[in-house]
Amino acid sequence: MIRIASALSALSLSLLCVTAPAAAEVDGESQYIFNSLLFLIGGFLVMWMAAGFCMLEAGLVRTKNVADICLKNILLYSVACLTFYLIGYNLMYTGVDGWIGTLGLWGADDTGAAAGDFGGGYAAGSDFFFQMVFVATTASIVSGTVAERIKLFPFLIFTALLASFIYPVQGAWKWGGGWLDAAGFQDFAGSTLVHSVGGWAALTGAIILGPRKGRYGRDGGVRHMPGSNLPLATLGTFILWMGWFGFNGASQLALGSALDAVTVSNIFVNTNMAAAAGTITAAALTRLRFGKVDLTMALNGALAGLVSITAGPDTPSIGMALGIGAVGAALVVYAVPFLDKLKIDDVVGAISVHLIAGIWGTLAVPLTNSDASFATQLLGIGAIGAFVILGSTLFWLALKASIGIRLHEEDEVNGADLAELGLEAYPEFGRGSQRFG
Amino acid sequence: MIRIASALSALSLSLLCVTAPAAAEVDGESQYIFNSLLFLIGGFLVMWMAAGFCMLEAGLVRTKNVADICLKNILLYSVACLTFYLIGYNLMYTGVDGWIGTLGLWGADDTGAAAGDFGGGYAAGSDFFFQMVFVATTASIVSGTVAERIKLFPFLIFTALLASFIYPVQGAWKWGGGWLDAAGFQDFAGSTLVHSVGGWAALTGAIILGPRKGRYGRDGGVRHMPGSNLPLATLGTFILWMGWFGFNGASQLALGSALDAVTVSNIFVNTNMAAAAGTITAAALTRLRFGKVDLTMALNGALAGLVSITAGPDTPSIGMALGIGAVGAALVVYAVPFLDKLKIDDVVGAISVHLIAGIWGTLAVPLTNSDASFATQLLGIGAIGAFVILGSTLFWLALKASIGIRLHEEDEVNGADLAELGLEAYPEFGRGSQRFG
Amino acid sequence: MIRIASALSALSLSLLCVTAPAAAEVDGESQYIFNSLLFLIGGFLVMWMAAGFCMLEAGLVRTKNVADICLKNILLYSVACLTFYLIGYNLMYTGVDGWIGTLGLWGADDTGAAAGDFGGGYAAGSDFFFQMVFVATTASIVSGTVAERIKLFPFLIFTALLASFIYPVQGAWKWGGGWLDAAGFQDFAGSTLVHSVGGWAALTGAIILGPRKGRYGRDGGVRHMPGSNLPLATLGTFILWMGWFGFNGASQLALGSALDAVTVSNIFVNTNMAAAAGTITAAALTRLRFGKVDLTMALNGALAGLVSITAGPDTPSIGMALGIGAVGAALVVYAVPFLDKLKIDDVVGAISVHLIAGIWGTLAVPLTNSDASFATQLLGIGAIGAFVILGSTLFWLALKASIGIRLHEEDEVNGADLAELGLEAYPEFGRGSQRFG
Repeated sequence: MIRIASALSALSLSLLCVTAPAAAEVDGESQYIFNSLLFLIGGFLVMWMAAGFCMLEAGLVRTKNVADICLKNILLYSVACLTFYLIGYNLMYTGVDGWIGTLGLWGADDTGAAAGDFGGGYAAGSDFFFQMVFVATTASIVSGTVAERIKLFPFLIFTALLASFIYPVQGAWKWGGGWLDAAGFQDFAGSTLVHSVGGWAALTGAIILGPRKGRYGRDGGVRHMPGSNLPLATLGTFILWMGWFGFNGASQLALGSALDAVTVSNIFVNTNMAAAAGTITAAALTRLRFGKVDLTMALNGALAGLVSITAGPDTPSIGMALGIGAVGAALVVYAVPFLDKLKIDDVVGAISVHLIAGIWGTLAVPLTNSDASFATQLLGIGAIGAFVILGSTLFWLALKASIGIRLHEEDEVNGADLAELGLEAYPEFGRGSQRFG
Repeated sequence: MIRIASALSALSLSLLCVTAPAAAEVDGESQYIFNSLLFLIGGFLVMWMAAGFCMLEAGLVRTKNVADICLKNILLYSVACLTFYLIGYNLMYTGVDGWIGTLGLWGADDTGAAAGDFGGGYAAGSDFFFQMVFVATTASIVSGTVAERIKLFPFLIFTALLASFIYPVQGAWKWGGGWLDAAGFQDFAGSTLVHSVGGWAALTGAIILGPRKGRYGRDGGVRHMPGSNLPLATLGTFILWMGWFGFNGASQLALGSALDAVTVSNIFVNTNMAAAAGTITAAALTRLRFGKVDLTMALNGALAGLVSITAGPDTPSIGMALGIGAVGAALVVYAVPFLDKLKIDDVVGAISVHLIAGIWGTLAVPLTNSDASFATQLLGIGAIGAFVILGSTLFWLALKASIGIRLHEEDEVNGADLAELGLEAYPEFGRGSQRFG
Repeated sequence: MIRIASALSALSLSLLCVTAPAAAEVDGESQYIFNSLLFLIGGFLVMWMAAGFCMLEAGLVRTKNVADICLKNILLYSVACLTFYLIGYNLMYTGVDGWIGTLGLWGADDTGAAAGDFGGGYAAGSDFFFQMVFVATTASIVSGTVAERIKLFPFLIFTALLASFIYPVQGAWKWGGGWLDAAGFQDFAGSTLVHSVGGWAALTGAIILGPRKGRYGRDGGVRHMPGSNLPLATLGTFILWMGWFGFNGASQLALGSALDAVTVSNIFVNTNMAAAAGTITAAALTRLRFGKVDLTMALNGALAGLVSITAGPDTPSIGMALGIGAVGAALVVYAVPFLDKLKIDDVVGAISVHLIAGIWGTLAVPLTNSDASFATQLLGIGAIGAFVILGSTLFWLALKASIGIRLHEEDEVNGADLAELGLEAYPEFGRGSQRFG
């Protein structure tokens, strides 16, 4: 309608004066292409985040578990994609009746475009691709927390259950147009729907699995088990930062108008600023608290900034984005040692980064978005939290009771690489592993 | 024609009722920009695959050859780009008379666009850029197989011959519009034209060069020579996976219509699914066969899935894409030890991944694409295989007879890094290299 | 105007014959989206260059300083983004009166697009995002040169001063539309404005800071201090190469017409070719001079090619682009040992790569661009050089006199990782660090 009106006005304009072409509007097919392209670019950037999580985790575990965590990461991505196709997508997005969608394989329906009707807005496959890589992100969060002591096979089964059931069901509530969406809950790109969900699943896993052997002394002391390759962990953080532009930017779900371009651009800026503020905040706080600047905490600060802004990257001013990222990072600096006090062993700090900062980011939305209210945000956080805690606890316990989830003690000492893969990640490098057992 | 008709119908529509703007179609200049943009995005993603091959290979060779393989990878990319510009492009794409194009430097011709005629469809440079990074991929395949014992200089000469002659000539037969294209051979993004070609060149090289010293015992045993840095190899695989979206997606060669967007999106999905199936299949098969899950085989499984789907990523359903990828990976799990039985020493498994899975992928096209037939696919595989075997054998033998292709025995023992570069890749890390000599 | 004329001619055409739809032109809103999209894609690619610098530098410093350089890189990116938002952007681009812009936070103004007027050309945030990641590049150049002996905190203060004052002021002279722009100085994507600026700041830093302990013997000998992880350095180079397509390509600042697409495509090709020529040239020269091929020099050759083409990637033929890149790399091969003769200690070779090749690239512009003259290019190089030398010398000296810029001798010996971060980058690998102290 708008387009035709504009075509007519352009014609009348052309009779009066030959000017103002800049006001001509984008046609329906171009909109369709722009929207699809946004999904595809966003999609390959989010897919790339799988490599980011893998490098981050490979850098933060000890040498003897590096190959195992690499294998887990590439397998979890594969399993998450497969099961989301088999069950997850339709459960989340198709025919949602308030609580849940339908059962069945996803299949593309592009009959509209084939008939020259571009009202569908984008290629079905581009949307599916983008949503599929999102669920892989959720699964990636868990692997870092439970690293160095979980067995490969039960971990992959949990991943399948997360990607095909837990994630899609709660996703249907909001992004599938279910009851939480109707209630007004706001979560633009998933501080809660992706990051807190991964965080809750990681938390229940960490508790049920127990800490790594030797991590917590009887005297309450925490034995430091340093990451084996910090440049890899840094690379992973940069990869995640880069991928997040796709994660948040393409969650606008449209690039078919100038206003979409404006919003996506603002999202890029705010995403970058929240991460920058998180990095600086975490570095400064560790310097103040410990006298040294902790690199791994700075990396987690960057990620906390990114998680925090994800619930609402479109509405804040830059100043607010900086504040939201900084607070998220500050929470993480305190949450990491606090979890250790509770003897909850999170190898890479994923619970602090994705759950704590995810909750904060979701609560911060009403500060800049008048469509959101604290009460509704709390409702969404609580409902999704309760569901994921319940679901993942049941699944973890069922796996523990059936096939077992934890490496044998001797295998944990020797490392998952030898136990599960029969190889070493760095077979030629120094045998310093004895130092950090 | 379509466009004008639609403009007219839009106008008539506007007289009847002011609706249905979503059917307005994309204009010629926007098509031109969309098409060019697809090439550019696809191009930088495929260029990025050069880094993927480099990391994969750097992770899978022993420490003493890591710097050498890094140097080979950045140089082969440079040499391939240079020679494809000097000779390759026009030999492959310009004035192909059935068998071969013309001799001469490539040069951009954008006079059409300059005159306001967008019928050319895309900027000449965007197409050239995309095709140029493709040839670098072909060259990258070879370096992994012949690593750890080939000399740098003859390897680079072979790369130049591959990029300026072998690849473009067979490429002209299909993508240049030559006789194989006329015969109906189908190879969407190059399971045969890129991956098998690299694989054949690697195979002839491995045979003529011979295995690494000590690799095969007189008793038929195979001495394991483990990769020195598995997270790097994993990173390389993720990079390749990411880059493959550009490799296959932009091989649609157009994004100027909604249907192009649909096809490119389906290609992204199928590419991802074949890789996921390949990863899972290889992991499962190694678990079943050896009791352990082999990380390097899982990585090669992902790559095999990608190679397999490359001949026809646009036509399969997701289920078929999963199957194509899974079969490709299964073939690789069996091909790798089989090549060792033949005492063909392939350091990274590139022959299995790119040649075997490439053949399989090409043969699988008729399963989902009615324009293809098994007979024609076999014809293409056979003709290109014969040509590349012949050409690369001749080139390898000529290099062997003239300047020699193999490191001196002492240099091989001490490592190519010291012999050819005079340095070490990791000068400060443990001297564990004695373990795997 | 063009658009309407074309619409009319399309209509008249349609009365005469139903053909030639390919000549229809892109509408104003699509232009707006294309332009913004170019900035966003270019922006995330340039952001990714921060990871490239980080990996390059992490690979080229010794083990004991690896975590420190990672921390510096992620922090400098964050600080540069923050300060460019707070002060830099408006100083460089807003209300420039010939010499300098205004003071104040950057804020998006998209009222035009909101009112349906797309004359602004692109989303304000997309431009800001792209310019912001550019300043981070400038700051990244410095960190490599002064690595292994500078303290973290003064380095970050210098970064803030560079991003908020030095870079924006000289940037205002050209890209902000100031006096150098009026004088006809040409610097398309910043061989001078970005790379030489970073290079000058690095040079003054290296001189004022002094060389690493033990680097230069009393007898004039240079003690080799080899990089600890060459595959990481190679990865960093590939990342930079990839990111440079965004750096140079999106500096066209527009993708809203077919001719923009042509120019951006040619820029991609020339950028790639200059880098390829640089790699080959540096490898060949080191082979001729030293009998071995130096990997780190080949990497720096690639980067020198990229820096050299940056001042004018749009106008050269491919042959000229190859020549420009080759000369840049050759200069670096000679500049690196020359700086050592002057006892200027540049850990990664950044002064040679970014300053020397940056000057060369700026001087090469008149060879292919008739809008440029050698005199004006020299004026720009000289004026910006003088300003940056003056400004950065003052800032370095002020930091030295106040809080000090150099690590304590003992801390330098033990490594910045232990001194400033209290951890090790590779805690489990061999303690070979004694070898290279």
